[in-house]
Amino acid sequence: MNIKLAKNYGFCFGVKRAIKIAESTQNASTIGPLIHNNEEIMRLKKNFNVETLEDISHVSGTKKAIIRTHGIPKQDLQFLKEKKVDIIDATCPYVTKPQKICEKMSKEGYDIVIFGDEMHPEVKGVKSYASGKVHVVLHVSELAALKLSARVAVVSQTTRKVEEFKEIVSYLISHYKEVRVFNTICNATFENQDAARELSKESDVMVVVGGKNSSNTKQLLHISKEFCSDSYLIESERELEASWFEGKEQCGITAGASTPDWIIKKIIEKISNFKV
Amino acid sequence: MNIKLAKNYGFCFGVKRAIKIAESTQNASTIGPLIHNNEEIMRLKKNFNVETLEDISHVSGTKKAIIRTHGIPKQDLQFLKEKKVDIIDATCPYVTKPQKICEKMSKEGYDIVIFGDEMHPEVKGVKSYASGKVHVVLHVSELAALKLSARVAVVSQTTRKVEEFKEIVSYLISHYKEVRVFNTICNATFENQDAARELSKESDVMVVVGGKNSSNTKQLLHISKEFCSDSYLIESERELEASWFEGKEQCGITAGASTPDWIIKKIIEKISNFKV
Repeated sequence: MNIKLAKNYGFCFGVKRAIKIAESTQNASTIGPLIHNNEEIMRLKKNFNVETLEDISHVSGTKKAIIRTHGIPKQDLQFLKEKKVDIIDATCPYVTKPQKICEKMSKEGYDIVIFGDEMHPEVKGVKSYASGKVHVVLHVSELAALKLSARVAVVSQTTRKVEEFKEIVSYLISHYKEVRVFNTICNATFENQDAARELSKESDVMVVVGGKNSSNTKQLLHISKEFCSDSYLIESERELEASWFEGKEQCGITAGASTPDWIIKKIIEKISNFKV
Repeated sequence: MNIKLAKNYGFCFGVKRAIKIAESTQNASTIGPLIHNNEEIMRLKKNFNVETLEDISHVSGTKKAIIRTHGIPKQDLQFLKEKKVDIIDATCPYVTKPQKICEKMSKEGYDIVIFGDEMHPEVKGVKSYASGKVHVVLHVSELAALKLSARVAVVSQTTRKVEEFKEIVSYLISHYKEVRVFNTICNATFENQDAARELSKESDVMVVVGGKNSSNTKQLLHISKEFCSDSYLIESERELEASWFEGKEQCGITAGASTPDWIIKKIIEKISNFKV
Protein backbone atom coordinates (compact mmCIF):
# COMPACT_ATOMS: atom_id res chain seq x y z
CA MET A 1 0.00 0.00 0.00
CA ASN A 2 1.25 3.47 -0.90
CA ILE A 3 1.03 6.19 1.72
CA LYS A 4 0.83 9.76 0.49
CA LEU A 5 0.66 13.03 2.43
CA ALA A 6 -1.56 15.85 1.23
CA LYS A 7 0.24 18.69 -0.54
CA ASN A 8 -0.76 21.00 2.31
CA TYR A 9 -1.63 19.82 5.82
CA GLY A 10 -1.18 20.46 9.50
CA PHE A 11 0.08 23.46 11.38
CA CYS A 12 -0.90 26.85 10.10
CA PHE A 13 0.95 30.11 10.63
CA GLY A 14 -1.12 31.07 13.71
CA VAL A 15 -0.54 27.77 15.47
CA LYS A 16 3.20 27.70 14.76
CA ARG A 17 3.37 31.22 16.15
CA ALA A 18 1.35 30.36 19.29
CA ILE A 19 3.52 27.34 20.09
CA LYS A 20 6.67 29.39 19.67
CA ILE A 21 5.22 32.00 22.03
CA ALA A 22 4.29 29.31 24.60
CA GLU A 23 7.71 27.64 24.41
CA SER A 24 9.52 30.93 24.89
CA THR A 25 7.24 32.09 27.71
CA GLN A 26 7.32 28.97 29.93
CA ASN A 27 5.74 28.60 33.38
CA ALA A 28 2.59 30.29 32.11
CA SER A 29 -1.07 29.33 31.86
CA THR A 30 -3.33 29.41 28.85
CA ILE A 31 -7.01 30.30 29.22
CA GLY A 32 -8.56 27.23 27.65
CA PRO A 33 -6.48 24.96 25.42
CA LEU A 34 -3.83 26.90 23.42
CA ILE A 35 -4.67 24.97 20.28
CA HIS A 36 -7.14 22.18 19.52
CA ASN A 37 -4.67 19.33 20.01
CA ASN A 38 -4.43 17.45 23.29
CA GLU A 39 -1.14 15.71 22.49
CA GLU A 40 0.64 18.96 21.78
CA ILE A 41 -0.82 20.55 24.90
CA MET A 42 0.57 17.67 26.99
CA ARG A 43 3.99 18.19 25.39
CA LEU A 44 3.96 21.89 26.24
CA LYS A 45 3.00 21.07 29.84
CA LYS A 46 5.75 18.46 30.18
CA ASN A 47 8.58 20.33 28.47
CA PHE A 48 7.75 23.98 29.16
CA ASN A 49 5.44 23.89 32.21
CA VAL A 50 2.64 25.58 30.27
CA GLU A 51 -0.59 24.90 32.18
CA THR A 52 -4.04 24.86 30.62
CA LEU A 53 -6.77 26.50 32.68
CA GLU A 54 -10.30 25.26 32.06
CA ASP A 55 -11.57 28.81 31.80
CA ILE A 56 -11.09 32.35 33.05
CA SER A 57 -12.59 31.57 36.47
CA HIS A 58 -9.51 29.48 37.33
CA VAL A 59 -7.11 32.35 36.77
CA SER A 60 -6.46 33.36 40.40
CA GLY A 61 -2.83 32.74 41.32
CA THR A 62 -1.77 32.88 37.66
CA LYS A 63 1.04 35.34 36.93
CA LYS A 64 1.36 34.93 33.17
CA ALA A 65 -1.64 34.19 30.97
CA ILE A 66 -1.24 33.17 27.35
CA ILE A 67 -4.22 34.09 25.16
CA ARG A 68 -4.78 31.15 22.87
CA THR A 69 -4.92 31.21 19.06
CA HIS A 70 -8.74 31.49 19.03
CA GLY A 71 -8.65 34.63 21.17
CA ILE A 72 -10.87 35.33 24.15
CA PRO A 73 -13.86 37.61 24.72
CA LYS A 74 -13.12 41.29 25.25
CA GLN A 75 -14.62 41.12 28.76
CA ASP A 76 -12.24 38.30 29.73
CA LEU A 77 -9.27 40.32 28.51
CA GLN A 78 -10.49 43.23 30.62
CA PHE A 79 -10.84 40.87 33.60
CA LEU A 80 -7.20 39.72 33.22
CA LYS A 81 -6.04 43.32 33.06
CA GLU A 82 -7.92 44.13 36.26
CA LYS A 83 -6.33 41.11 37.95
CA LYS A 84 -2.92 42.51 36.93
CA VAL A 85 -2.01 39.27 35.19
CA ASP A 86 0.80 39.50 32.61
CA ILE A 87 -0.91 38.99 29.27
CA ILE A 88 0.93 37.21 26.47
CA ASP A 89 -1.25 37.41 23.39
CA ALA A 90 -0.99 34.38 21.10
CA THR A 91 -4.27 35.16 19.35
CA CYS A 92 -3.80 34.36 15.68
CA PRO A 93 -3.56 37.62 13.71
CA TYR A 94 -6.20 36.21 11.37
CA VAL A 95 -8.55 36.08 14.38
CA THR A 96 -7.59 39.50 15.69
CA LYS A 97 -8.73 40.89 12.34
CA PRO A 98 -12.45 39.95 12.55
CA GLN A 99 -12.39 41.10 16.19
CA LYS A 100 -11.23 44.55 15.06
CA ILE A 101 -13.67 44.58 12.14
CA CYS A 102 -16.58 43.85 14.52
CA GLU A 103 -15.52 46.65 16.83
CA LYS A 104 -15.15 49.15 13.95
CA MET A 105 -18.32 48.18 12.08
CA SER A 106 -20.40 48.42 15.26
CA LYS A 107 -19.07 51.91 15.84
CA GLU A 108 -19.97 52.85 12.25
CA GLY A 109 -23.54 51.69 12.84
CA TYR A 110 -23.60 48.42 10.92
CA ASP A 111 -25.53 45.40 12.16
CA ILE A 112 -23.13 42.48 12.21
CA VAL A 113 -23.53 38.93 10.98
CA ILE A 114 -20.85 36.40 11.95
CA PHE A 115 -20.84 33.22 9.89
CA GLY A 116 -19.73 30.52 12.30
CA ASP A 117 -20.48 28.30 15.25
CA GLU A 118 -21.83 30.27 18.20
CA MET A 119 -20.21 27.84 20.65
CA HIS A 120 -16.74 28.07 19.14
CA PRO A 121 -14.27 30.06 21.27
CA GLU A 122 -13.06 32.06 18.27
CA VAL A 123 -16.62 33.15 17.48
CA LYS A 124 -17.38 33.97 21.12
CA GLY A 125 -14.30 36.19 21.11
CA VAL A 126 -15.09 37.90 17.82
CA LYS A 127 -18.73 38.46 18.81
CA SER A 128 -17.69 40.15 22.05
CA TYR A 129 -16.11 42.98 20.10
CA ALA A 130 -19.41 44.08 18.56
CA SER A 131 -21.00 46.86 20.57
CA GLY A 132 -24.24 46.98 18.56
CA LYS A 133 -26.53 44.35 17.05
CA VAL A 134 -24.70 41.10 16.26
CA HIS A 135 -25.93 37.70 15.10
CA VAL A 136 -24.07 34.42 14.67
CA VAL A 137 -25.42 32.15 11.94
CA LEU A 138 -24.21 28.75 10.85
CA HIS A 139 -26.57 28.30 7.93
CA VAL A 140 -28.21 30.56 5.37
CA SER A 141 -31.65 29.36 6.51
CA GLU A 142 -31.21 31.21 9.81
CA LEU A 143 -31.06 34.60 8.09
CA ALA A 144 -34.75 34.96 7.24
CA ALA A 145 -35.65 35.26 10.93
CA LEU A 146 -33.24 38.15 11.53
CA LYS A 147 -34.34 41.74 11.40
CA LEU A 148 -31.31 43.74 10.42
CA SER A 149 -30.88 47.38 9.52
CA ALA A 150 -30.25 48.38 5.88
CA ARG A 151 -26.48 48.32 6.47
CA VAL A 152 -24.99 44.97 7.35
CA ALA A 153 -21.39 43.92 7.86
CA VAL A 154 -20.47 40.25 7.63
CA VAL A 155 -17.38 38.34 8.76
CA SER A 156 -16.61 34.65 8.91
CA GLN A 157 -15.09 32.31 11.44
CA THR A 158 -11.62 31.69 9.99
CA THR A 159 -12.15 27.97 9.44
CA ARG A 160 -15.48 27.92 7.58
CA LYS A 161 -16.06 26.88 3.97
CA VAL A 162 -16.05 29.74 1.50
CA GLU A 163 -18.91 28.22 -0.50
CA GLU A 164 -21.21 28.45 2.53
CA PHE A 165 -19.99 31.97 3.24
CA LYS A 166 -20.99 32.89 -0.32
CA GLU A 167 -24.50 31.56 0.32
CA ILE A 168 -24.81 33.75 3.40
CA VAL A 169 -23.61 36.79 1.46
CA SER A 170 -25.88 36.06 -1.51
CA TYR A 171 -28.91 36.00 0.77
CA LEU A 172 -27.88 39.23 2.47
CA ILE A 173 -27.25 41.18 -0.74
CA SER A 174 -30.68 40.34 -2.10
CA HIS A 175 -32.32 41.52 1.15
CA TYR A 176 -30.25 44.47 2.34
CA LYS A 177 -29.14 47.69 0.64
CA GLU A 178 -25.51 47.64 1.74
CA VAL A 179 -23.59 44.55 2.72
CA ARG A 180 -19.99 45.02 3.73
CA VAL A 181 -18.29 41.68 3.29
CA PHE A 182 -15.02 40.86 5.01
CA ASN A 183 -13.69 37.52 3.89
CA THR A 184 -11.90 36.52 7.08
CA ILE A 185 -11.62 32.86 6.11
CA CYS A 186 -7.99 31.83 6.46
CA ASN A 187 -5.97 30.82 3.39
CA ALA A 188 -4.30 27.98 5.27
CA THR A 189 -7.71 26.40 5.76
CA PHE A 190 -8.39 26.69 2.00
CA GLU A 191 -5.06 25.18 1.08
CA ASN A 192 -5.39 22.21 3.44
CA GLN A 193 -8.94 21.66 2.18
CA ASP A 194 -8.00 21.81 -1.50
CA ALA A 195 -5.12 19.39 -0.93
CA ALA A 196 -7.41 17.01 1.03
CA ARG A 197 -9.92 17.09 -1.82
CA GLU A 198 -7.29 16.25 -4.42
CA LEU A 199 -5.72 13.49 -2.34
CA SER A 200 -9.03 11.86 -1.38
CA LYS A 201 -9.91 11.54 -5.08
CA GLU A 202 -6.95 9.23 -5.64
CA SER A 203 -7.10 7.38 -2.29
CA ASP A 204 -9.13 4.34 -1.24
CA VAL A 205 -8.55 5.05 2.44
CA MET A 206 -8.01 8.46 4.05
CA VAL A 207 -6.65 9.20 7.52
CA VAL A 208 -7.40 12.67 8.85
CA VAL A 209 -5.32 13.58 11.87
CA GLY A 210 -6.48 16.24 14.29
CA GLY A 211 -8.48 17.19 17.36
CA LYS A 212 -11.99 15.77 17.42
CA ASN A 213 -13.26 19.13 18.66
CA SER A 214 -11.36 21.05 15.99
CA SER A 215 -13.61 22.74 13.46
CA ASN A 216 -11.10 22.72 10.60
CA THR A 217 -10.21 19.05 11.18
CA LYS A 218 -13.88 18.09 10.97
CA GLN A 219 -14.12 20.01 7.69
CA LEU A 220 -11.19 17.99 6.32
CA LEU A 221 -12.96 14.77 7.29
CA HIS A 222 -16.15 15.96 5.61
CA ILE A 223 -14.32 16.81 2.38
CA SER A 224 -12.38 13.53 2.40
CA LYS A 225 -15.59 11.54 2.82
CA GLU A 226 -17.09 13.19 -0.25
CA PHE A 227 -14.55 11.45 -2.47
CA CYS A 228 -13.35 8.58 -0.29
CA SER A 229 -15.99 6.90 1.88
CA ASP A 230 -13.35 5.09 3.99
CA SER A 231 -12.10 8.21 5.75
CA TYR A 232 -11.19 8.19 9.45
CA LEU A 233 -10.54 10.96 11.97
CA ILE A 234 -7.96 10.17 14.66
CA GLU A 235 -6.07 12.17 17.25
CA SER A 236 -3.15 9.78 17.74
CA GLU A 237 -1.62 6.60 16.32
CA ARG A 238 -3.22 4.59 19.17
CA GLU A 239 -6.60 4.82 17.44
CA LEU A 240 -5.42 3.24 14.18
CA GLU A 241 -6.97 -0.14 13.29
CA ALA A 242 -5.26 -2.50 10.89
CA SER A 243 -8.61 -3.54 9.38
CA TRP A 244 -9.09 -0.08 7.84
CA PHE A 245 -6.24 -0.75 5.46
CA GLU A 246 -7.00 -4.32 4.40
CA GLY A 247 -7.11 -4.64 0.63
CA LYS A 248 -6.40 -0.93 0.13
CA GLU A 249 -3.86 0.36 -2.35
CA GLN A 250 -3.66 4.11 -1.78
CA CYS A 251 -3.69 5.61 1.71
CA GLY A 252 -3.95 9.40 1.90
CA ILE A 253 -3.03 11.36 5.00
CA THR A 254 -3.98 14.88 5.92
CA ALA A 255 -4.01 16.80 9.19
CA GLY A 256 -5.86 19.72 10.77
CA ALA A 257 -4.25 23.08 11.39
CA SER A 258 -3.48 22.21 15.02
CA THR A 259 -1.71 18.92 14.38
CA PRO A 260 2.06 18.84 15.02
CA ASP A 261 4.36 17.03 12.61
CA TRP A 262 5.64 14.64 15.30
CA ILE A 263 2.16 13.10 15.65
CA ILE A 264 1.79 12.69 11.87
CA LYS A 265 5.21 11.01 11.74
CA LYS A 266 4.18 8.44 14.37
CA ILE A 267 0.99 7.68 12.46
CA ILE A 268 2.79 7.10 9.16
CA GLU A 269 5.23 4.77 10.93
CA LYS A 270 2.46 2.69 12.47
CA ILE A 271 0.48 2.42 9.21
CA SER A 272 3.65 1.37 7.37
CA ASN A 273 4.12 -1.48 9.86
CA PHE A 274 0.62 -2.92 9.43
CA LYS A 275 0.71 -6.24 7.60
CA VAL A 276 -2.00 -5.56 5.00
CA MET B 1 -58.14 32.94 -26.28
CA ASN B 2 -57.70 34.43 -22.82
CA ILE B 3 -55.56 37.55 -22.46
CA LYS B 4 -53.94 38.14 -19.10
CA LEU B 5 -51.75 40.98 -17.88
CA ALA B 6 -48.79 40.29 -15.61
CA LYS B 7 -49.36 41.11 -11.94
CA ASN B 8 -46.68 43.81 -12.23
CA TYR B 9 -45.70 45.49 -15.47
CA GLY B 10 -44.86 48.77 -17.15
CA PHE B 11 -43.98 52.16 -15.74
CA CYS B 12 -41.84 52.26 -12.68
CA PHE B 13 -41.63 55.02 -10.10
CA GLY B 14 -38.68 56.76 -11.80
CA VAL B 15 -40.36 56.87 -15.20
CA LYS B 16 -43.70 58.12 -13.86
CA ARG B 17 -41.77 60.83 -12.03
CA ALA B 18 -39.74 61.81 -15.12
CA ILE B 19 -42.83 62.10 -17.31
CA LYS B 20 -44.58 64.23 -14.70
CA ILE B 21 -41.51 66.48 -14.59
CA ALA B 22 -41.41 66.75 -18.42
CA GLU B 23 -45.15 67.50 -18.67
CA SER B 24 -44.93 70.21 -16.04
CA THR B 25 -41.75 71.76 -17.47
CA GLN B 26 -42.83 72.06 -21.15
CA ASN B 27 -40.82 73.73 -23.96
CA ALA B 28 -37.67 72.02 -22.72
CA SER B 29 -35.13 69.62 -24.20
CA THR B 30 -33.95 66.31 -22.87
CA ILE B 31 -30.34 65.21 -23.39
CA GLY B 32 -30.90 61.89 -25.12
CA PRO B 33 -34.31 60.20 -24.92
CA LEU B 34 -36.07 60.85 -21.58
CA ILE B 35 -37.08 57.20 -21.30
CA HIS B 36 -36.57 54.19 -23.56
CA ASN B 37 -39.91 54.49 -25.34
CA ASN B 38 -40.25 56.22 -28.72
CA GLU B 39 -44.05 56.43 -28.67
CA GLU B 40 -44.11 58.22 -25.33
CA ILE B 41 -41.35 60.57 -26.45
CA MET B 42 -43.41 61.50 -29.51
CA ARG B 43 -46.42 62.19 -27.26
CA LEU B 44 -44.34 64.48 -25.03
CA LYS B 45 -43.08 66.35 -28.11
CA LYS B 46 -46.57 66.75 -29.57
CA ASN B 47 -48.44 67.67 -26.38
CA PHE B 48 -45.79 69.44 -24.29
CA ASN B 49 -43.14 70.58 -26.81
CA VAL B 50 -40.47 68.53 -25.09
CA GLU B 51 -37.62 68.09 -27.59
CA THR B 52 -35.15 65.24 -27.57
CA LEU B 53 -31.55 66.20 -28.28
CA GLU B 54 -29.36 63.48 -29.74
CA ASP B 55 -26.61 64.28 -27.26
CA ILE B 56 -24.99 67.04 -25.24
CA SER B 57 -23.25 68.51 -28.32
CA HIS B 58 -26.63 69.71 -29.60
CA VAL B 59 -27.39 71.74 -26.50
CA SER B 60 -26.56 75.23 -27.82
CA GLY B 61 -29.67 77.42 -27.92
CA THR B 62 -31.40 75.24 -25.30
CA LYS B 63 -32.72 77.16 -22.31
CA LYS B 64 -34.11 74.30 -20.23
CA ALA B 65 -32.49 70.89 -20.20
CA ILE B 66 -34.22 67.91 -18.63
CA ILE B 67 -31.81 65.22 -17.37
CA ARG B 68 -33.33 61.90 -18.30
CA THR B 69 -34.10 58.98 -15.96
CA HIS B 70 -30.78 57.25 -16.70
CA GLY B 71 -28.79 60.31 -15.65
CA ILE B 72 -25.87 61.81 -17.53
CA PRO B 73 -22.10 61.81 -16.94
CA LYS B 74 -20.80 64.23 -14.33
CA GLN B 75 -18.77 66.06 -16.98
CA ASP B 76 -21.91 66.67 -19.07
CA LEU B 77 -23.69 68.10 -16.05
CA GLN B 78 -20.76 70.42 -15.49
CA PHE B 79 -20.89 71.43 -19.18
CA LEU B 80 -24.57 72.37 -18.86
CA LYS B 81 -23.83 74.44 -15.78
CA GLU B 82 -21.08 76.29 -17.62
CA LYS B 83 -23.48 76.97 -20.51
CA LYS B 84 -25.89 78.48 -17.95
CA VAL B 85 -28.66 76.14 -19.06
CA ASP B 86 -31.55 75.66 -16.60
CA ILE B 87 -31.18 72.09 -15.37
CA ILE B 88 -34.26 70.10 -14.50
CA ASP B 89 -33.10 66.82 -13.04
CA ALA B 90 -35.36 63.87 -13.83
CA THR B 91 -32.66 61.31 -13.03
CA CYS B 92 -34.35 58.42 -11.25
CA PRO B 93 -33.44 58.55 -7.54
CA TYR B 94 -32.50 54.86 -7.83
CA VAL B 95 -29.84 55.92 -10.37
CA THR B 96 -28.66 58.93 -8.39
CA LYS B 97 -27.87 56.48 -5.58
CA PRO B 98 -25.15 54.42 -7.36
CA GLN B 99 -23.74 57.71 -8.71
CA LYS B 100 -23.32 58.98 -5.16
CA ILE B 101 -21.97 55.62 -3.96
CA CYS B 102 -19.30 55.66 -6.69
CA GLU B 103 -18.27 59.17 -5.75
CA LYS B 104 -18.07 58.34 -2.03
CA MET B 105 -16.35 54.97 -2.40
CA SER B 106 -13.70 56.43 -4.70
CA LYS B 107 -12.98 59.10 -2.11
CA GLU B 108 -12.66 56.40 0.56
CA GLY B 109 -10.08 54.59 -1.56
CA TYR B 110 -12.10 51.64 -2.84
CA ASP B 111 -11.65 50.26 -6.33
CA ILE B 112 -15.08 50.14 -7.95
CA VAL B 113 -16.77 47.41 -9.94
CA ILE B 114 -19.99 48.29 -11.74
CA PHE B 115 -22.05 45.33 -12.88
CA GLY B 116 -23.70 46.43 -16.09
CA ASP B 117 -23.44 47.29 -19.75
CA GLU B 118 -20.61 49.72 -20.43
CA MET B 119 -22.55 51.25 -23.35
CA HIS B 120 -25.73 51.90 -21.36
CA PRO B 121 -26.28 55.61 -20.57
CA GLU B 122 -27.07 54.84 -16.91
CA VAL B 123 -23.75 53.02 -16.53
CA LYS B 124 -21.83 55.76 -18.34
CA GLY B 125 -23.31 58.24 -15.90
CA VAL B 126 -22.64 56.16 -12.79
CA LYS B 127 -19.07 55.40 -13.90
CA SER B 128 -18.32 59.09 -14.37
CA TYR B 129 -18.74 59.67 -10.64
CA ALA B 130 -15.82 57.42 -9.72
CA SER B 131 -12.65 59.42 -9.28
CA GLY B 132 -10.36 56.40 -8.77
CA LYS B 133 -10.12 52.97 -10.39
CA VAL B 134 -13.42 51.77 -11.85
CA HIS B 135 -14.34 48.78 -14.00
CA VAL B 136 -17.59 47.87 -15.72
CA VAL B 137 -18.25 44.15 -16.08
CA LEU B 138 -21.19 42.38 -17.63
CA HIS B 139 -20.13 38.83 -16.78
CA VAL B 140 -18.30 37.15 -13.91
CA SER B 141 -15.73 35.79 -16.39
CA GLU B 142 -14.38 39.32 -16.93
CA LEU B 143 -13.28 39.63 -13.29
CA ALA B 144 -10.23 37.38 -13.43
CA ALA B 145 -8.40 39.83 -15.70
CA LEU B 146 -8.88 42.76 -13.29
CA LYS B 147 -6.25 43.75 -10.81
CA LEU B 148 -8.06 45.39 -7.95
CA SER B 149 -6.86 46.59 -4.56
CA ALA B 150 -7.80 44.63 -1.42
CA ARG B 151 -10.83 46.88 -0.88
CA VAL B 152 -13.50 46.72 -3.56
CA ALA B 153 -16.91 48.39 -3.75
CA VAL B 154 -19.52 46.99 -6.11
CA VAL B 155 -22.75 48.46 -7.47
CA SER B 156 -25.14 47.28 -10.14
CA GLN B 157 -26.93 48.86 -13.05
CA THR B 158 -30.51 49.17 -11.75
CA THR B 159 -32.01 46.82 -14.33
CA ARG B 160 -29.70 43.80 -14.06
CA LYS B 161 -30.61 40.33 -12.79
CA VAL B 162 -29.86 39.79 -9.11
CA GLU B 163 -28.69 36.20 -9.73
CA GLU B 164 -25.89 37.47 -12.00
CA PHE B 165 -25.04 40.19 -9.49
CA LYS B 166 -24.64 37.46 -6.87
CA GLU B 167 -22.19 35.63 -9.14
CA ILE B 168 -20.09 38.79 -9.47
CA VAL B 169 -20.10 39.29 -5.70
CA SER B 170 -19.29 35.63 -5.00
CA TYR B 171 -16.22 35.85 -7.18
CA LEU B 172 -15.09 39.08 -5.57
CA ILE B 173 -15.46 37.87 -1.98
CA SER B 174 -13.33 34.82 -2.63
CA HIS B 175 -10.57 36.98 -4.15
CA TYR B 176 -10.59 40.21 -2.15
CA LYS B 177 -10.38 40.94 1.57
CA GLU B 178 -13.16 43.50 1.75
CA VAL B 179 -16.03 43.77 -0.67
CA ARG B 180 -18.57 46.48 -0.04
CA VAL B 181 -21.72 45.46 -1.84
CA PHE B 182 -24.44 47.97 -2.69
CA ASN B 183 -27.44 46.26 -4.17
CA THR B 184 -28.63 49.05 -6.43
CA ILE B 185 -30.89 46.80 -8.50
CA CYS B 186 -34.34 48.35 -8.55
CA ASN B 187 -37.30 46.55 -6.93
CA ALA B 188 -39.61 47.50 -9.79
CA THR B 189 -37.39 45.49 -12.12
CA PHE B 190 -37.59 42.49 -9.78
CA GLU B 191 -41.34 42.73 -9.49
CA ASN B 192 -41.94 42.98 -13.23
CA GLN B 193 -39.53 40.08 -13.77
CA ASP B 194 -41.16 37.85 -11.16
CA ALA B 195 -44.59 38.55 -12.58
CA ALA B 196 -43.37 37.86 -16.15
CA ARG B 197 -41.91 34.54 -14.99
CA GLU B 198 -45.16 33.47 -13.33
CA LEU B 199 -47.32 34.53 -16.27
CA SER B 200 -45.11 32.95 -18.93
CA LYS B 201 -45.42 29.59 -17.14
CA GLU B 202 -49.16 29.55 -17.74
CA SER B 203 -49.13 31.15 -21.21
CA ASP B 204 -48.67 29.59 -24.64
CA VAL B 205 -47.92 32.96 -26.22
CA MET B 206 -46.34 35.98 -24.53
CA VAL B 207 -46.26 39.57 -25.75
CA VAL B 208 -43.61 41.77 -24.17
CA VAL B 209 -44.19 45.47 -24.81
CA GLY B 210 -41.32 47.93 -24.61
CA GLY B 211 -38.45 49.68 -26.31
CA LYS B 212 -36.19 47.39 -28.30
CA ASN B 213 -33.16 49.22 -26.90
CA SER B 214 -34.47 49.00 -23.33
CA SER B 215 -32.38 46.79 -21.10
CA ASN B 216 -35.18 45.84 -18.71
CA THR B 217 -37.58 45.05 -21.56
CA LYS B 218 -35.02 42.70 -23.11
CA GLN B 219 -34.67 40.97 -19.71
CA LEU B 220 -38.45 40.46 -19.63
CA LEU B 221 -38.31 38.87 -23.09
CA HIS B 222 -35.45 36.63 -21.99
CA ILE B 223 -37.36 35.46 -18.89
CA SER B 224 -40.58 34.92 -20.86
CA LYS B 225 -38.77 32.81 -23.45
CA GLU B 226 -37.45 30.51 -20.72
CA PHE B 227 -40.96 29.28 -20.00
CA CYS B 228 -42.84 30.20 -23.17
CA SER B 229 -40.93 29.81 -26.43
CA ASP B 230 -43.51 31.84 -28.37
CA SER B 231 -42.60 35.18 -26.82
CA TYR B 232 -42.50 38.39 -28.87
CA LEU B 233 -41.09 41.84 -28.17
CA ILE B 234 -42.99 44.74 -29.75
CA GLU B 235 -42.96 48.49 -29.37
CA SER B 236 -46.46 49.19 -30.70
CA GLU B 237 -49.65 47.43 -31.81
CA ARG B 238 -48.60 47.90 -35.45
CA GLU B 239 -46.07 45.09 -35.10
CA LEU B 240 -48.61 42.50 -33.97
CA GLU B 241 -49.18 39.55 -36.34
CA ALA B 242 -52.35 37.49 -36.18
CA SER B 243 -50.43 34.28 -36.92
CA TRP B 244 -48.69 34.46 -33.51
CA PHE B 245 -52.00 33.73 -31.80
CA GLU B 246 -53.36 30.97 -34.02
CA GLY B 247 -54.32 27.93 -31.96
CA LYS B 248 -53.22 29.56 -28.71
CA GLU B 249 -55.31 29.50 -25.56
CA GLN B 250 -53.50 31.72 -23.08
CA CYS B 251 -51.90 35.00 -24.09
CA GLY B 252 -49.78 36.73 -21.45
CA ILE B 253 -48.85 40.41 -21.65
CA THR B 254 -46.11 42.23 -19.84
CA ALA B 255 -44.35 45.53 -20.41
CA GLY B 256 -41.01 47.14 -19.70
CA ALA B 257 -40.54 49.90 -17.14
CA SER B 258 -40.73 52.61 -19.82
CA THR B 259 -43.99 51.48 -21.42
CA PRO B 260 -47.02 53.74 -20.91
CA ASP B 261 -50.43 52.23 -20.20
CA TRP B 262 -52.00 53.78 -23.29
CA ILE B 263 -49.76 51.66 -25.54
CA ILE B 264 -50.57 48.48 -23.63
CA LYS B 265 -54.29 49.27 -23.92
CA LYS B 266 -54.06 49.59 -27.72
CA ILE B 267 -52.22 46.27 -27.93
CA ILE B 268 -54.80 44.41 -25.87
CA GLU B 269 -57.57 45.84 -28.07
CA LYS B 270 -55.87 44.73 -31.27
CA ILE B 271 -55.14 41.21 -29.99
CA SER B 272 -58.77 40.89 -28.83
CA ASN B 273 -59.94 41.69 -32.34
CA PHE B 274 -57.83 39.03 -34.07
CA LYS B 275 -59.96 36.18 -35.38
CA VAL B 276 -57.99 33.26 -34.02
